[in-house]
Amino acid sequence: MSSTRLQGIFTPNLVPFTDSGDINEPELRRYVNWLIERGVHGLYPNGSTGEFTRFTVEERKRIVQIIADETRGRVPLLAGAAEANVKETIRACEFYHDLGVRAVAIVAPFYYKLSPKSVYAYFREIGRNTPIDVTLYNIPMFASPIDVPTVQRLSEECEKIVAIKDSSGEIPHMIRMIQAVRPNRPEFSFLTGWDAALMPMLLVGCDGGTNASSGVVPELTRKLYDLTTSLQLDAARKVQYDLVTLFDTMIYQAEFPDGFRAAVELRGFRMGRGRQPLSSDQLADLSKLGNTLQCMLSEHGFTDQPVGGCGIGTASGDRAPEIDSIVQNVVAELRRRGLM
Amino acid sequence: MSSTRLQGIFTPNLVPFTDSGDINEPELRRYVNWLIERGVHGLYPNGSTGEFTRFTVEERKRIVQIIADETRGRVPLLAGAAEANVKETIRACEFYHDLGVRAVAIVAPFYYKLSPKSVYAYFREIGRNTPIDVTLYNIPMFASPIDVPTVQRLSEECEKIVAIKDSSGEIPHMIRMIQAVRPNRPEFSFLTGWDAALMPMLLVGCDGGTNASSGVVPELTRKLYDLTTSLQLDAARKVQYDLVTLFDTMIYQAEFPDGFRAAVELRGFRMGRGRQPLSSDQLADLSKLGNTLQCMLSEHGFTDQPVGGCGIGTASGDRAPEIDSIVQNVVAELRRRGLM
Amino acid sequence: MSSTRLQGIFTPNLVPFTDSGDINEPELRRYVNWLIERGVHGLYPNGSTGEFTRFTVEERKRIVQIIADETRGRVPLLAGAAEANVKETIRACEFYHDLGVRAVAIVAPFYYKLSPKSVYAYFREIGRNTPIDVTLYNIPMFASPIDVPTVQRLSEECEKIVAIKDSSGEIPHMIRMIQAVRPNRPEFSFLTGWDAALMPMLLVGCDGGTNASSGVVPELTRKLYDLTTSLQLDAARKVQYDLVTLFDTMIYQAEFPDGFRAAVELRGFRMGRGRQPLSSDQLADLSKLGNTLQCMLSEHGFTDQPVGGCGIGTASGDRAPEIDSIVQNVVAELRRRGLM
Amino acid sequence: MSSTRLQGIFTPNLVPFTDSGDINEPELRRYVNWLIERGVHGLYPNGSTGEFTRFTVEERKRIVQIIADETRGRVPLLAGAAEANVKETIRACEFYHDLGVRAVAIVAPFYYKLSPKSVYAYFREIGRNTPIDVTLYNIPMFASPIDVPTVQRLSEECEKIVAIKDSSGEIPHMIRMIQAVRPNRPEFSFLTGWDAALMPMLLVGCDGGTNASSGVVPELTRKLYDLTTSLQLDAARKVQYDLVTLFDTMIYQAEFPDGFRAAVELRGFRMGRGRQPLSSDQLADLSKLGNTLQCMLSEHGFTDQPVGGCGIGTASGDRAPEIDSIVQNVVAELRRRGLM
Repeated sequence: MSSTRLQGIFTPNLVPFTDSGDINEPELRRYVNWLIERGVHGLYPNGSTGEFTRFTVEERKRIVQIIADETRGRVPLLAGAAEANVKETIRACEFYHDLGVRAVAIVAPFYYKLSPKSVYAYFREIGRNTPIDVTLYNIPMFASPIDVPTVQRLSEECEKIVAIKDSSGEIPHMIRMIQAVRPNRPEFSFLTGWDAALMPMLLVGCDGGTNASSGVVPELTRKLYDLTTSLQLDAARKVQYDLVTLFDTMIYQAEFPDGFRAAVELRGFRMGRGRQPLSSDQLADLSKLGNTLQCMLSEHGFTDQPVGGCGIGTASGDRAPEIDSIVQNVVAELRRRGLM
Repeated sequence: MSSTRLQGIFTPNLVPFTDSGDINEPELRRYVNWLIERGVHGLYPNGSTGEFTRFTVEERKRIVQIIADETRGRVPLLAGAAEANVKETIRACEFYHDLGVRAVAIVAPFYYKLSPKSVYAYFREIGRNTPIDVTLYNIPMFASPIDVPTVQRLSEECEKIVAIKDSSGEIPHMIRMIQAVRPNRPEFSFLTGWDAALMPMLLVGCDGGTNASSGVVPELTRKLYDLTTSLQLDAARKVQYDLVTLFDTMIYQAEFPDGFRAAVELRGFRMGRGRQPLSSDQLADLSKLGNTLQCMLSEHGFTDQPVGGCGIGTASGDRAPEIDSIVQNVVAELRRRGLM
Repeated sequence: MSSTRLQGIFTPNLVPFTDSGDINEPELRRYVNWLIERGVHGLYPNGSTGEFTRFTVEERKRIVQIIADETRGRVPLLAGAAEANVKETIRACEFYHDLGVRAVAIVAPFYYKLSPKSVYAYFREIGRNTPIDVTLYNIPMFASPIDVPTVQRLSEECEKIVAIKDSSGEIPHMIRMIQAVRPNRPEFSFLTGWDAALMPMLLVGCDGGTNASSGVVPELTRKLYDLTTSLQLDAARKVQYDLVTLFDTMIYQAEFPDGFRAAVELRGFRMGRGRQPLSSDQLADLSKLGNTLQCMLSEHGFTDQPVGGCGIGTASGDRAPEIDSIVQNVVAELRRRGLM
Repeated sequence: MSSTRLQGIFTPNLVPFTDSGDINEPELRRYVNWLIERGVHGLYPNGSTGEFTRFTVEERKRIVQIIADETRGRVPLLAGAAEANVKETIRACEFYHDLGVRAVAIVAPFYYKLSPKSVYAYFREIGRNTPIDVTLYNIPMFASPIDVPTVQRLSEECEKIVAIKDSSGEIPHMIRMIQAVRPNRPEFSFLTGWDAALMPMLLVGCDGGTNASSGVVPELTRKLYDLTTSLQLDAARKVQYDLVTLFDTMIYQAEFPDGFRAAVELRGFRMGRGRQPLSSDQLADLSKLGNTLQCMLSEHGFTDQPVGGCGIGTASGDRAPEIDSIVQNVVAELRRRGLM
């Protein structure tokens, strides 16, 4: 499998918790099967959606072990392998390699905001020492950005680096990367992590995506992928529009990735309480969000309507209109300024 | 003409200067004809590309007068009408209305960073008092952002507001606006000001663009528009890629809009020295940029190669490679962080 | 007066409007006298507080004429002179010079975000051609920033450039400028525009400030200046703390400078409706803010308490606590990220 | 010692490495003694300067063990205790409590950018379960910001939370926190992590700082603290100015904290190669930076001049002036925009 080009929709795996806050292995296995049955092209544990930073080293390994064991080669795995430093990260690469995953994904160093030169040096050291194919993971809102010259240079110097997953959502940036890399590395793969731009990303040349929405509505993201790649654009556009609404609701109306966790609950999985504590306000908000999401999912036939039904425009629940408008404005403002 | 939907590529007009720094009327007239002959769908004076802030009130009016006079209705005009305050702006609307332009474009208030409520109040006051159709102009890197709820509300309350020009370049934002406005205002027009995303913007539902590149390579932007709207996507993608390279060079390698001015010079127009003074370093850089641009334009047959020819990868001229790499990194960094 | 070093608190003048939205000359004259009688060291028309961008060229000139005429040399004037381009700005310098103002203040170019080189070229052209002393005006939240090397170079090359007004509020930045400039230009003056840091700015070496609060509570800012420069630090600290609370309320709880305008109303001046339209929500908020400010000003004996009195912690009026908390959080977030 | 108020300068400990990249224990012990002998008031391992994210859980514990053992109660310790999630962080609190450290410092969650409510919920959970005093650690450039209402609420609800270390460097923010917290918690301690504003921070009411410079020039930071708190302001100002120059050089001319590591080398410690790989360019730059720093330190008599001596203004080494100016401008720009 190791020579296959990375292509299609890879689902960033959420992790269900038990009541005691540990990994809920049976539910995780059940979720993995459910996803594969609904047509996702691959699975991607230990990404941002998978809250990799909130697990211990041992837990991160355990998550991939469970998923690899349950998947049994039915779809390729992309395993998040970023650890505290290069040495630990390479160790993780070796471990995942032994598990038989297709490739690892490694986010650029975070906390410290590193310059392009340091990002280059970091990935080069990894690229030279990894036994397994590496996907660069660019997510500038959380980690040091990986710029175009860096991607180009790494793609030329390290054949083990085979792909980039970009979550910036910026189309021109994707085009610049493709132009810089594809001439010399035609098999290099470009994946987008920004669900709200999946269709246009595929149309400008992306090979697929790692999209958190596919963990919630795998049927829809698969349909979007199939419609777009077969150039049924009017139908694809409609699905993309719906996906923007759903994605925006999940990503902007709760702390990431709690909106996605709430939605997967509605698809029938017990996700448990997340590891980041929430205030009582936030728990109440999350419950209202669940209602909103249930209405959205029911429109696609993925769930029943909530008890009490879905009025027109009840999406914002029963909050006072004034609050609603404040929140909407603020979210829009922060989003536009690139802060959300 | 006033009932026509705004559609296609509107060229944001650059203004040529005489040696004494005044508007070069004959050259402006010649340029207008050249653009129309090359297939632009409309003209757009007094936009950001047209450096509207660097002219006096009287000069702004004069520019539109000249263009309207020279155009003689061959293509519709969209005239930038933002003045110091609402009263002055409405006066400009009346003036442009009398000149017979199709619509005005009004940028959100700038200098002060206004909240969405203030942006709403500003445009509502204008929307209620303008005799001419208004295009909202959202350019968050320069002016107060116009968020989605504001566009929606204005579109519902003011029928004279008929379009939005968005220069954020963000696809999901465009989709959100279309979803919020089109159901109630099917004739409302969505134009993108971000050339590097023109093809995907059209594919997700935009009606056209106001693209600075169309003032330089009107043949290319027209071709991109025609290929995309007729769904010849492989060919369109190639043109879009080329446009990204050209656009990036013009927008990031000089103070805006000097890169565009330099390129129009190469198409045969005497643009004169701009009104923003440049240091001697910058003048030298601009001259090298001219060389780079000439090589790019010559690849499309729009100019000859510069004396001395175009080596492979000479795009960055003869600067020391170290400087070049610094600049590239910095530009990439700033661009990614949304600061450029 | 032209050889005097700029020192002390210069009040950025607000402009009162008549019911028809014009400059209210009698009220402006009355306000000028009131300020001078309360000990401000100078006056500063056509700054950001004075909403210079919302007036026509003629109005800007008229404002300075009125103030110069009313002041009759009792205190020095610093006149904002930024116009559409270098030529127009130099014309304004000449005009203000003829009026006998002490110096002009010129903000870096705005709307376009210029590089340091362009900012340098802009001010150099002005510095070489101005008949009157120039204060650089750095306000990075609204205009292109003026960085330290640029200030240094301009101070060395242009003797007519005699001061910088910095509204970034960043202490280390102020120290860097002082270190870069003072050795060669010991008479160069450093003024801070950030009232919330006035005391520490003076203690690290600033010569004074142009502080919007001084237009509201000139007694307090003068007291703070006097206590700080005479090293009565415990007393100064207390005044600075109070000023932070008042300044934060005026600057963050309404569109700038409406909070300041509302407060000056409470000191007995009819400021009239501002030129930037407000939504009905905003007008209601502004009225509540007036109540909050009246309570604050009454604590210092500057006004009576509002009808109904001032409860403990009524500062946020009667908004629902939930909204209040949202707003507070958002404001804090935006403020911290440098967006407010 | 547990009831003592946190006060004075706590040195954020750098960690020396052996050739194999492990903790160099003998050198760390030698460094600890050297710092204590030079008058630092406390030590602070596992902060940002101490590169806590680049160590494994076990290594972080080991570092504190070594320092606690070597310190033997001579000065109080503040131990960075942030781990992958609340449960792991509380475990670390227990471990450090058993070691007898004075308090822990816990950075707000990073990678994900959390809202104020989540930051509150996170610290509240910790505050209720920690056996040891907690210092909140606000460093908005690297982690989710801790806003003023959050600090206030936590200070009121959790008596184990006894201090905040703030690295924003923003004076008004510090004043707002002091105003919000001190009335109810007079013993709560406010520490600044921004060396370039240490003197004014102390003058507006701070209790001390955790300043990376104190690991390089403990004599100088102690002197600044003593001069400032005894109100010898002219002398203090001079030291603060020098510290800005040194701090800027260490923090902006290399990847953080490599500039500090390079400077500690010059004070006689073998720091070893850091864990973040560097490109060959960066290694060359670091070597030039060492020269610059040696010149600065020699001016204070802390080192000899480098071989070849220190010319006037050789601070920027032998880079071409053009590069130098680019770098300076870029640094200034990024710094001003709060991106560095």
